[in-house]
Amino acid sequence: MKIIIVGLGLIGGSIAKALKQNTPHQVLGMDTDEGSLLDACSCGAIDGKAGIEDLKNADMVYLCVYPGAALDFTREHGPDLREGCVLTDTCGIKSAVCAGMEELRNTGRYVFVAGHPMAGKERSGFAASDPSIFVGASYLLVPGDAPGWAVELVEEMALCMGFGRTVRTDPKHHDQMIAFTSQVPHALACAYVLSPRCPEHKGFSAGSYRDVSRVANINDELWSRLFLDNKDALTEELEELMGNLKAIRDAVSKGDERELRKLLKRAGDIKRRVG
Amino acid sequence: MKIIIVGLGLIGGSIAKALKQNTPHQVLGMDTDEGSLLDACSCGAIDGKAGIEDLKNADMVYLCVYPGAALDFTREHGPDLREGCVLTDTCGIKSAVCAGMEELRNTGRYVFVAGHPMAGKERSGFAASDPSIFVGASYLLVPGDAPGWAVELVEEMALCMGFGRTVRTDPKHHDQMIAFTSQVPHALACAYVLSPRCPEHKGFSAGSYRDVSRVANINDELWSRLFLDNKDALTEELEELMGNLKAIRDAVSKGDERELRKLLKRAGDIKRRVG
Repeated sequence: MKIIIVGLGLIGGSIAKALKQNTPHQVLGMDTDEGSLLDACSCGAIDGKAGIEDLKNADMVYLCVYPGAALDFTREHGPDLREGCVLTDTCGIKSAVCAGMEELRNTGRYVFVAGHPMAGKERSGFAASDPSIFVGASYLLVPGDAPGWAVELVEEMALCMGFGRTVRTDPKHHDQMIAFTSQVPHALACAYVLSPRCPEHKGFSAGSYRDVSRVANINDELWSRLFLDNKDALTEELEELMGNLKAIRDAVSKGDERELRKLLKRAGDIKRRVG
Repeated sequence: MKIIIVGLGLIGGSIAKALKQNTPHQVLGMDTDEGSLLDACSCGAIDGKAGIEDLKNADMVYLCVYPGAALDFTREHGPDLREGCVLTDTCGIKSAVCAGMEELRNTGRYVFVAGHPMAGKERSGFAASDPSIFVGASYLLVPGDAPGWAVELVEEMALCMGFGRTVRTDPKHHDQMIAFTSQVPHALACAYVLSPRCPEHKGFSAGSYRDVSRVANINDELWSRLFLDNKDALTEELEELMGNLKAIRDAVSKGDERELRKLLKRAGDIKRRVG
């Protein structure tokens, strides 16, 4: 197959390297930054730079850019893709991306399968790319009404890249789950370190401070966009968290040991059951 | 020296083992549970069981029991201790313990130095005791007006046990800092896993879910007591957290990207600065 990676940042660069390492396919890259393209060529992460002729006969295209740029690229180049070319994205939110792609679907003959590789790290850009971040992680798929063979192709490539499993879901459920598993931990790590006690923590802190505050070392530009692109689900999930915190705070401030133990026991039971 | 450990649970058992391994002192134990005493004797964690005559000529006594039991023991046995015996506790909250000890001070001739070894794990009891949990951790001291030589003795023993540093503070500051560094992470881990999305997390979660939810695997009896014994400081700190979460929630729900970036940037800057 001829596979084109659009955007050679942390995720696109890691996908290119994983595909070159683990499959016999031809991997080409596109990026607005010539430096990333050169770096990717010279380290063998890609076989070369993709031109417009390559788009016309590509078998798969991975969109590894921010949501708005993924839609812009599809608007501009969707009509260039051949019939049956599998177009897939890697965006961390899905409702907005899938709705935008649905609007564009009659402008091209490609097949779109929405995807979200659940992997990352605190640095970005091609220099940080590393296919080991995929090992054992989940690759989420939001296939909508895409044909089975196309969804299976994206799944097969994910397993080739080292992902531990693929999970199929719909845009709304995806965005709700991501709000809970990823966005809320980032929001609460930030809220936590904003306490006036934080700068004095050294000497008074151990593992629980370290774990809760870890992701407060945040890329504010990227995460502001991700939060706002998932506004409704994130707002709902933050309200859920604030409600549960308020219940604990109320039990503490009232000195209600029975209620407090009930809340902590329920939480402990859930954690021991679901991991 | 003759050192007596009162309460051979996770902390008392670990202190006994650390002192036996790293110092030449005689270490004796007291516990209401005969099984723990036998286990501690047979594995060499203590040199034997302490009787009332041992209390009378002990050089140091470590109270490794819940706050109420530490005060009860002092009320009953404080008058038995010799002049200059150093009595120290290991309770995780200090305002209530120090106030209670202050009331009892004229009933005995011992010297009290409040302490808090910042170490633990998710299991309890002598069977879980392990001096390696102390390695590199902080040993907090709340000396009040205890004489310098007594405070230095407790510090010296802490370093012998493997602690990385000792930190002196006062009861109020201790309890505020512990509310922030330890109690709030436990409360928010519990609040977090109470979300209806939690039981579905598998396949959708990665490192940030794992880290934030870790301490939700909680001993509800112990932590309810610790929370309520530090009610005022914990309530204040939970309100700080809820206020910061509300600011983030408001910026998200209003779609205010400028305000959201400002909050996340401030948090990221703090985390990068203070670690």
